[in-house]
Formats: sequence, structure tokens, C-alpha cells
Amino acid sequence: MKFLHTADWHIGKKLHDFSLFDNQRDAFEQIEQIALREKVDAVVIAGDLYDRSVPSEDAVRLLDQMLIQLNLKDHLPVLAINGNHDSAVRLNTGSDWFKATDFYMNTKLKDAFTPVVIGDTQFFLLPYFELPAARNYFKDVEIYNLNDAMKLIFNQMKERFESDKKHVLVAHFFAAGSSHCDSETQVEVGGLDAVAPDLMEDFDYVALGHLHSKNALHHPRMKYSGSPVKFSVSEAQDEKGVWIVDTDQKDEMANWVPLTPKNDIVVLQESFKTLTSPEFYRQVDDDQFVAIRLTDKEIIPNVMNRLREFYPRIISFQRQNGRNAITQESGRKIKKLSPLEMLETFYHEATGDKLSSVQQKFAKEELAKAERSVN
Amino acid sequence: MKFLHTADWHIGKKLHDFSLFDNQRDAFEQIEQIALREKVDAVVIAGDLYDRSVPSEDAVRLLDQMLIQLNLKDHLPVLAINGNHDSAVRLNTGSDWFKATDFYMNTKLKDAFTPVVIGDTQFFLLPYFELPAARNYFKDVEIYNLNDAMKLIFNQMKERFESDKKHVLVAHFFAAGSSHCDSETQVEVGGLDAVAPDLMEDFDYVALGHLHSKNALHHPRMKYSGSPVKFSVSEAQDEKGVWIVDTDQKDEMANWVPLTPKNDIVVLQESFKTLTSPEFYRQVDDDQFVAIRLTDKEIIPNVMNRLREFYPRIISFQRQNGRNAITQESGRKIKKLSPLEMLETFYHEATGDKLSSVQQKFAKEELAKAERSVN
Repeated sequence: MKFLHTADWHIGKKLHDFSLFDNQRDAFEQIEQIALREKVDAVVIAGDLYDRSVPSEDAVRLLDQMLIQLNLKDHLPVLAINGNHDSAVRLNTGSDWFKATDFYMNTKLKDAFTPVVIGDTQFFLLPYFELPAARNYFKDVEIYNLNDAMKLIFNQMKERFESDKKHVLVAHFFAAGSSHCDSETQVEVGGLDAVAPDLMEDFDYVALGHLHSKNALHHPRMKYSGSPVKFSVSEAQDEKGVWIVDTDQKDEMANWVPLTPKNDIVVLQESFKTLTSPEFYRQVDDDQFVAIRLTDKEIIPNVMNRLREFYPRIISFQRQNGRNAITQESGRKIKKLSPLEMLETFYHEATGDKLSSVQQKFAKEELAKAERSVN
Repeated sequence: MKFLHTADWHIGKKLHDFSLFDNQRDAFEQIEQIALREKVDAVVIAGDLYDRSVPSEDAVRLLDQMLIQLNLKDHLPVLAINGNHDSAVRLNTGSDWFKATDFYMNTKLKDAFTPVVIGDTQFFLLPYFELPAARNYFKDVEIYNLNDAMKLIFNQMKERFESDKKHVLVAHFFAAGSSHCDSETQVEVGGLDAVAPDLMEDFDYVALGHLHSKNALHHPRMKYSGSPVKFSVSEAQDEKGVWIVDTDQKDEMANWVPLTPKNDIVVLQESFKTLTSPEFYRQVDDDQFVAIRLTDKEIIPNVMNRLREFYPRIISFQRQNGRNAITQESGRKIKKLSPLEMLETFYHEATGDKLSSVQQKFAKEELAKAERSVN
């Protein structure tokens, strides 16, 4: 059994207001080509296909195209579950028809115990679920945390293990001991919701989703594929890709195949002078997402707008060394400004934008109020 | 060719805040039984399957169950289009898989010209679309109204007519000369968007959706099925049902099969005394939706709450004969009230509810402001 393991597509996700559709489409096409080249028997998608429970029409259209391509055009079996970002009900639409072409989309806990059998392998598709669903399924109100639920779940799965078959778990949760990055939703990865890897030792392979880096967990047979696209500055140095899993291999069951980012995230830790010099900015592609860590300490008027002329896709801006205290000269200038002008200058310096007419109106009113209360 | 014609399911629609899920499920079950009993070759649903472009999870779940039942369990071919209330993109999810089991969900104008052939009949599934889509499809910016667009559309369909086949159009629009009722969205049924029935004479049958009454249009071979459930008080006297169409019949091609409402809408035009007398209210089922037309002219304190004790599902309340002018006595009472008390009394009389704490706070503030501006 040879399959491709991917997860956390988050179709529709934006990076600091920039659409990632082109990047997600490009990554998908690479994944598709890898699947075809490696002649895999199936493609596993371990949850978070969408970024939101109510995805936009554009996101629905794009994911539809991807799944049609893999399953109906390339005739690849697809095994998928919902993640915490997906609406189980919405993602389930059409799934009763999908099965006819070996596309298994499982969004229901109760269906996790009926494995999908492809070749010599039983795939157990365990969707993301909330604790009440487990309490309800097991009729046991004393399931206090995810680990308790998983013990019951894995035991019931093991009862269905056929001894002449391989056993693969597809799931979406935080495995204890994993490390996470900025683009994951932190609320679900607290200690109470961590699953001990020991519990899963009886599976030949565990294809996990939820964490966005393949390095989140180090285990030869339990892996996060990570997301196919970088979703935060903290992932700038990450290598994105997919696992090609061959359950017939004893030692190196999972092989990493990297993807080439269409528009990468680059962190530029430089002075304003360097950033705005042609020999520097010409090396940075216009389409790249740029995180700026400015080394200058001085106040640079209109800094964001001036940087955007050279880097249209700035996704983050930090002062690496803080900002200088106000000098005597700049202090004198500031003292001449009215409170509103001061606010406008500060806002512009900090964001590169001017106050909108609504903001301006609000600021005027509030400053007037403040003045009245002082006088 | 014998098929069932229904439309305007509006799954998820509410009637004055009351869920209609039970009524919609019940109507569906009746439709299913009619289809099975009549041994139809197909079920046609002429648009507005959902009530909103972004339906709730409960609505998604219910419609899924219905379509699974018809197509996958009863093995009935299903022919459907989106209406103006549906999101074409969202409703399209899974449709590429549906075809394998003769479930044709067409949401794209360009696909309307490839008929679905079942037995001796070509079905042309024309989804609801906006004019720019037609301009784009025909590469003709001079399509100024729906009638213009339809001329081009029907001509192109006729080119695909096979002479040895019957030709059925499934569409969702306002046919000129039709009459409408309160639960339809009026914006789309203006004069500019009316389609002349003459244009459709070459079809053997036209299965229309959009208008909620079967009586909206009187034509032997062009029919609105209407909605399967009553959606407004104006439909209280309507009979809901489906058309069973047999294209082999020359004269009475379409036969009407009524549905029995699970909870009907009743209009009660009576005095308060009658409405609250046991011999009267005991005849009205608790589950019925009640429109009250009160014949009294007197002020009746707390009237809505008192009526709700006997009629839990009041969906509309009118004073059939208006209200008495204020009497001397009641005038004296009113004069003793503070402005806030007066507002509270009026609100309670009109709605049966008390002001919420937010409303009360707002009212106090505004009354205080008004008082200040007078003094």
C-alpha cells in the first residue's frame, strides 16, 4: 500500500489580507503530480480542507475543482476527514455519492469504526469531533478529556483489525509532545486535548492533520504532513511538502517530498537604506510575501507606504531594535502640532495609511470631549 | 415519460420565527410516496431548494437526507436546478458525482444546452441566472432584459431538439401574466424580468419554479408547481401539491396531486371573547399556525400574550376594524403615566412583550435627551 499523506489545506485562508488561492492551486497541482508520478494507491487528506466552517463561494469552487481532478479525472481513491476548521455537516454534502468512485469523506465519529479497505490496508478515518460527541457515542458521561475518548476509540478500532491487513489511522488532533506554529488555532491544542502517541502504537501508520509543520512530531510511523502552503511568518523557514507512505517498507515507511512555494515568505532584517536600495530590492520578487524587521531606530516618516513601493506584499512589520526616543528637534516639531495632527502623524507613521473620514470624525469628537472634560 | 414536478422547497425557511423543518420533512415524505406510487420515471425540482444562499447546517442536513432518499435509496432519477434563493456554487457541490446515479443538478447556464435524456424525453435544465451571465455566454452586451436572453436561450435549445423525442424545459423565473403571493421575493418579479409564455410554445412541457402557487399561471403545458408548504398567510387558502406529468397524454398532460399540510395556516377573524372561549379555541389544534384578525375595536391590555395562551403559534395579528379612539377614562389613566411608562404600556400592548433591558436603557437615555432639548 502506497499512499500520499497531506492535510491542512485551509482553502480560502488569507495571509494578512492577501488571497492565497493562487498558491493553494499551485501547491495542489504539485501534489497531484507527485501522486501520479509515485503511482500511489490513494490520497489521504487529514482534515481542515477549508479554513472556515462557512467557506466563501470561491473557496467552495476551488476545493470542488481539486477533488474532481483527483478523484474523477485522475481516478485516485481519496480518503478525507473534517478538521476543526471544517463544518462536518457542510463538508459531508455529496459524500454518499462520492463512495461510488472510492472517495471517502468521513465526518461522523460513528463511521470511524468501519474501515475503508484498499488493497491490503484498513484505513480508519477518524474525523475531528468534540467531546460531547464521544460521550454520546459511547454512552459514557465520564469521558473528561480527549485522551480518554481516544483510548475507547482506538480499542474499538483494534477490535476491527484484520490480522492479514495493514492498519492506518487518519486523524486530526494535537499529539502530545508536538510543537506548534503561529497559523494553527491555539485554543484546541491545550494540554487537556492532547493525545498520547503511545495509544497509537498498534497502527502501522498514523496520518495526522492539525499542526502545520512536518517537524511538529518526530516519530517514524506517526506524522503530521503539515500544510502545503505557508500560513504565517513563523513558517518562513519551513519546508512544505507531503509524505509518500509505503507500508511495505519496514524502516523508512514515510518519504518526504517537498513542494516548491509559488510565492514564498521572506524575512528581511535590514535597514531602511538597504531595503530601499535598488541592488537589494531588485533581488526580491514582487510576488513574494515579505516580513520586514527594520533595524533602524530612527523615526522614518511614512515608512510603510514607502516600503510598499518596493515590496507590495508586506505581511508583517517590526522594529528589530525598537525606536529612538524623541530628539529635541523632533520634540519641538511635535509640540507645534494640534492633538488631531499628532494623532494623524502617529497613525500614518505606524500604519502607512491616512485616517479614514469616519476615523477622523470619531477622533475629532473624542478629542473635543476630552478637551471639554479637562477645561 | 411520466415525471413528478415540484419546486420552491425553501428548506430552512421560517414562518414568523417558527421552524418549518417538520412541515417540510412531512411534505417531502408525501412527495416521495406520490413518486413511488405513480411509478414516475423522474423527479423534477425547479429551483429554490434552499431558502438562502448560505443555508444553516440543519437545512443542509435535511436537504441532503431528502436527496439521498430519492436518488440513492428509492433509485429515482432527479433533475434539479438552482433558483434565485440558492447559491449556484454551493448547490453545485458534489454534482459531478451525482450524475453516476442519474441525479442531475444543473447550476450553470452553459450546461442548460446539453439536455438530459431519460427515455423518450430531452430535459433542458435552465438554472436561475443573472443577465450578465447571459451577456457573457452569448458574447452579446445588448441583452437588456430577461425576455431577450430567453429568446436566444430557447432558440439554442431548439437547435438541439431531436424530432423523435419529447422536450421538457425546467426553469425558474417569472412568466409574464402570472400572479404572485406574499412569500415570494418581489424584487425579481418586476416587469423587466418577465418571460413571455409564447416563447416556450415549442416545448412539450415547461416545469416552472419561483412562484409559490400552482394557480399563478394558467396554461395546460406550462405550470408552476408552487411550494410544497405554505410560507405566508396569503397562502392560507391555497392547496399545495405536485404535478404528475405524463407527456404521452395529449389533453390533460399534468395531473395535480395535493399534499396534506402537517400544520396548516388558519385565519381566525373573531372577537377576543370568541377567541378565548373554550368551545372555540378547542377546535384549533395547538400546532396550527394562526393568523388573527381581531374584530374588537377596544383596547385589550396584554392582548398578544393572552391570545398566545390559547394559540401558541400566532404568525400574524391584525385589528380587522381598527382601534377605538382613546376614551375619557383611559385618557385620564394615560395622563398619569410618565413618558417611559407610556412607552412601556404601548410596547406591551402592541407586541405582548416587555422592553428588554437594552431597549429600556436606550429609551431612558433618549427620553432624557428629548426632555433636555425641550427645557
